[in-house]
Amino acid sequence: MTLLRRSPGRVYLPQGFSFSAACAGIKASGRLDLGLVEAPPGTTAAAVFTQNRVVAAPVEFGRAALAANHGRMRAVIVNSGNANCATGDHAYLACQQICRAAGRLLGLQSEEVFPSSTGIIGVALPTEKILATLATLVSERGTTKKHLDQFVRAIMTTDTRPKLASVRFRSGKGTITLAGVAKGSGMIHPQLATMLVYLFTDAAATAAELKRFLRGGCEHTFNCISVDGDTSTNDTVLLLASGKSGVRLNNKSTRKRFAHALSEVCESLAEQIVSDGEGVQHVIRLSIEQARSQKEALRVARAVAHSLLVKTAWAGADPNWGRILAAVGSSGVPIKQDKVSIFIGSQLVCRNGASCRFDERRAHEHLVKPGCDVRITLQRGRAGTTFLTTDLTADYVRINADYST
Amino acid sequence: MTLLRRSPGRVYLPQGFSFSAACAGIKASGRLDLGLVEAPPGTTAAAVFTQNRVVAAPVEFGRAALAANHGRMRAVIVNSGNANCATGDHAYLACQQICRAAGRLLGLQSEEVFPSSTGIIGVALPTEKILATLATLVSERGTTKKHLDQFVRAIMTTDTRPKLASVRFRSGKGTITLAGVAKGSGMIHPQLATMLVYLFTDAAATAAELKRFLRGGCEHTFNCISVDGDTSTNDTVLLLASGKSGVRLNNKSTRKRFAHALSEVCESLAEQIVSDGEGVQHVIRLSIEQARSQKEALRVARAVAHSLLVKTAWAGADPNWGRILAAVGSSGVPIKQDKVSIFIGSQLVCRNGASCRFDERRAHEHLVKPGCDVRITLQRGRAGTTFLTTDLTADYVRINADYST
Repeated sequence: MTLLRRSPGRVYLPQGFSFSAACAGIKASGRLDLGLVEAPPGTTAAAVFTQNRVVAAPVEFGRAALAANHGRMRAVIVNSGNANCATGDHAYLACQQICRAAGRLLGLQSEEVFPSSTGIIGVALPTEKILATLATLVSERGTTKKHLDQFVRAIMTTDTRPKLASVRFRSGKGTITLAGVAKGSGMIHPQLATMLVYLFTDAAATAAELKRFLRGGCEHTFNCISVDGDTSTNDTVLLLASGKSGVRLNNKSTRKRFAHALSEVCESLAEQIVSDGEGVQHVIRLSIEQARSQKEALRVARAVAHSLLVKTAWAGADPNWGRILAAVGSSGVPIKQDKVSIFIGSQLVCRNGASCRFDERRAHEHLVKPGCDVRITLQRGRAGTTFLTTDLTADYVRINADYST
Repeated sequence: MTLLRRSPGRVYLPQGFSFSAACAGIKASGRLDLGLVEAPPGTTAAAVFTQNRVVAAPVEFGRAALAANHGRMRAVIVNSGNANCATGDHAYLACQQICRAAGRLLGLQSEEVFPSSTGIIGVALPTEKILATLATLVSERGTTKKHLDQFVRAIMTTDTRPKLASVRFRSGKGTITLAGVAKGSGMIHPQLATMLVYLFTDAAATAAELKRFLRGGCEHTFNCISVDGDTSTNDTVLLLASGKSGVRLNNKSTRKRFAHALSEVCESLAEQIVSDGEGVQHVIRLSIEQARSQKEALRVARAVAHSLLVKTAWAGADPNWGRILAAVGSSGVPIKQDKVSIFIGSQLVCRNGASCRFDERRAHEHLVKPGCDVRITLQRGRAGTTFLTTDLTADYVRINADYST
């Protein structure tokens, strides 16, 4: 699919969306903490959410609104600095008040506004501060790249960089643009959903079509990453389609290209989230091969990705494959030790469950890089997966052990 | 059971066992790294091992020897500094050579010697160094507390303290003594087995009886602890009974007392292992209550104990119960958010899945202590468990990210 246009510096803006950001005073730092997206009439939407049994009020609220509207959505309002989770009735009331007030300012029903929150769990959302900021937020919206940039900054928490990806491709009848933004950093181990991700396209599609595309787009991207193994209460991926390109996803070739474009954007955002994980020095691309099923491959990947001893070895660029082998063995998958081989970079470091001669210095030098490859073969079948994960550094501990945050 | 005698400073030595330790030069530090236990004729034995699918050669060797001997064992030989794991045939050959040579010096069959190893995985065990040290090791064995102390030091790796526990109790016909030693520190998340633990008693019992006692003794102790969630390839708990007290475990009252004594010793060793975990500042006693089954309670306990965000919050003595709630929600147990309550110390900090008023400073002060209590109630049933775990500090990362180790 070489027709996709991407460039690291360039952002393609899908038609029909406007963006805005403001400081409501939720973050003590005084940084941007409130964001708004407005979409044109006729916009369709689909979303996937966290599988955590503890969910934040905006997740329940957004899910219900999408169902009530049959997948129509006209606006998104997001705050950072507070998860609006586990504060009982207050959390639901806050969603209601905010969506109603934003709807009033935008001339929309309250159910046409999709709420999101990210930040600390269990602290009452300062609703009044948000309500007092809504008029400014609405009046300052615009469709330029600068507006989108400000929106992305407003959803950041411990992220050190804004996360954006976009592609544009021609279909027979016109040009479709797809852009996505994300926030990540900590509590990153999405299960069938993910952190906060918003995807915007000007393609024309029904909500049911969008849902199918979205599930496919998430499967090998957001569902295959982990920073710390903690699954959030607020994970949300929302896809909005304005239809403003005038191109419907109604033929096979366009659908294929759109699915590919969506995968590209999701993959890029997933990579950006992992590489900006809290305290991360190295991103590890973990390939599990020759598993009996993809589920089994994922189980092995997660066991390795969540082993503290493996993650700390990576922090030290230590080619200690014994810890990787031990993690594979405790994954719950009935592997045979003498069938497991491990590669660091292109080098075989463990053959059939036992040590083999390898250039330790070269393996160390590979692990010093910001992006590393670790490949594990199981000799059980033909399935596999690629999983993005990180090392665990003393900085991660410092960021999360700091009582003042 | 007030008849058990324990005192922190005092060690009760069971009759019939002699101990020894030596420096074989496996550890670069030049510290003690080879230990020997000799038991008298007629000694019975039972063991439980790691559930990791990747197992070290001594685990397979020891398991096979116990089966071949129908639970008779006369000696234990342990090295630290090398796990003798994942080095292919070399590992098995090393076990064979060492057990045969030790047997020859002690006048025993090779299968009467039980091998154990702990240390780095995937590096060839320096068999020659061990063989060259065996004669000294055997000649210096003795039955005093000092000999036992030296043995405990020889099995340490990153442990900062030796771990010992013993009890003595009277039974109608005599006095039974039970002593145990352990090494722990990292890769601590035993699954139906544990790190290296050796338990010695002078009670008289069949191997089958010992096996039953041992399973019961491990269930709520070594199987309910975790430092880093990593399950070792070498975990072994071995119980040896010399019979030298002359007291058989053949009546209900003696059996009950013995089971109680075994639980006490295992509990003490489990606590010692957790509190000496790598980089540990705080030990957290996690109580899960009102679960539907004990298995379910354990699943919730492990999800909380292995959450990096929970562990790092504990490192900062941060009463951030939202992270605990999120971990409970992602445990896979179908809990209802509005039924979950959380206590820190004696204080309720989360009532029915939502925030409630509590004295944050008091909660913080509780979490500053070296031993803390966190209690979670689920309102699902009557089962529960107590799980010992730790905080995660920057020191843990430093210890395990150090490439030179």
